[in-house]
Amino acid sequence: MKNILLTIEYDGTNFSGWQKQLKERSVQGELERVLSFICNQSIKINGTSRTDAGVHAYGQRASFKGNFGIPVNRIQIAANNLLEDIYITEVNEMPLDFHARFDALGKKYIYKIINTERVDIFKRNYYYQIPKKLDVKAMQAAACFFIGTHDFKSFQASGGKEMETTVRTIYDLKIIDEFKKNEECTSRNIRIEIIGDGFLYNMVRIITGTLIDVGVGKLDAEEVLNIIEGKDRQRAGHTAPPQGLYLAEVYYDKQYLNETSNQLID
Amino acid sequence: MKNILLTIEYDGTNFSGWQKQLKERSVQGELERVLSFICNQSIKINGTSRTDAGVHAYGQRASFKGNFGIPVNRIQIAANNLLEDIYITEVNEMPLDFHARFDALGKKYIYKIINTERVDIFKRNYYYQIPKKLDVKAMQAAACFFIGTHDFKSFQASGGKEMETTVRTIYDLKIIDEFKKNEECTSRNIRIEIIGDGFLYNMVRIITGTLIDVGVGKLDAEEVLNIIEGKDRQRAGHTAPPQGLYLAEVYYDKQYLNETSNQLID
Repeated sequence: MKNILLTIEYDGTNFSGWQKQLKERSVQGELERVLSFICNQSIKINGTSRTDAGVHAYGQRASFKGNFGIPVNRIQIAANNLLEDIYITEVNEMPLDFHARFDALGKKYIYKIINTERVDIFKRNYYYQIPKKLDVKAMQAAACFFIGTHDFKSFQASGGKEMETTVRTIYDLKIIDEFKKNEECTSRNIRIEIIGDGFLYNMVRIITGTLIDVGVGKLDAEEVLNIIEGKDRQRAGHTAPPQGLYLAEVYYDKQYLNETSNQLID
Repeated sequence: MKNILLTIEYDGTNFSGWQKQLKERSVQGELERVLSFICNQSIKINGTSRTDAGVHAYGQRASFKGNFGIPVNRIQIAANNLLEDIYITEVNEMPLDFHARFDALGKKYIYKIINTERVDIFKRNYYYQIPKKLDVKAMQAAACFFIGTHDFKSFQASGGKEMETTVRTIYDLKIIDEFKKNEECTSRNIRIEIIGDGFLYNMVRIITGTLIDVGVGKLDAEEVLNIIEGKDRQRAGHTAPPQGLYLAEVYYDKQYLNETSNQLID
């Protein structure tokens, strides 16, 4: 018996989401179909995160067990040859008691925004395009209030799995302004990077929507503190669309997460 | 009666091509549907170029005539609000005898290549990804042989419209190497820009495939001269896939085309 951990990149555009569906095309379903074929047995995989329709990944993780003849390092090549909008970037054999989801200590999401007057149709599935000029400094000021351990009830959408607690820890939340001064460009890329021990349903997208509401002047940066304390979804900003969201990394190593986030985990 | 010229950008990924089809989604069909709705009458448009499935455009042109109440400058805004993967970048009222296709003096196509060891699934619909290292200098040497007036019979695919002559003039063919030395990137963007008075069926894609065959060492640069003279499709290189191809510009103005191509047209 082997226990295999996959690191997976995917373009979420043509999927109904991660989770297997009876009739719709899902990332899990597509991977299970291809892996079952390669391993010549029915494979069930456990993903770390159930990303929604349209959400992308650079570093989703999933594990599966089985007794199969194919060497571990061949799985990646064989699967990538059969996959189109999914790419397995790493395959690792893990101890038998390892579980991709339960053993995850944290995750990093990236949210990509383009601040541009003129819509770019080629980027419609990969960015959130905002025509109104964003005040990035105000967004950065607002971002600070999210870092730390808080009850994020205001940033949870209904429709997700019922959670025991809505308290989560955000280790880091960066807003990176990729405006290039020397180019004759009228557009500006803004990337949000958020690392936490876990995220509620739509939490990253509601935090992003709230930060954008700050950026366009609909909300003051300081108001974020009241929104968190209010524990009321109605007070937070809009839900940013799935197209700009990327599951970037899943952390299993405490040491690594410490270094990445420059914060202590306990 | 008004005669309207549209300049159109589109992402060809989800279209069966430009030309209207009975059952499949086409750029022409989608535009006619939206324009007919906006102008409140049946609109038929004449496109400059019948791009294939998967081929994109930054500057396709199409013209249509009609008696409609909506002001010309409102057509663009109204249509763009209803379109998703098509964007009208310009709307101009033209003399009644103007025709988008028959009056075109030349066209510019761009072909986008990424030279990369590792496939990027996010770029699969927008670039031709070549794993083997390309010798760009050899490709540039080969490109020179295409410039000028030649019989391009070797670079015509079957299945297109029967042409009276296979002689065409290429005013310019640039191969632009966008490798950035200072970034820690393992990939290299190569852009081919080709300007001509007209192109045979799949001509740009066969020229591109031939240039790539030179770049990977399958063909010598000088061999291109013999391929052109041979007037035999079998001797030319492979047909590059549609995903990397963009119809960039259509020229109606002799003066402008002269300046752009630095060549004389007669």
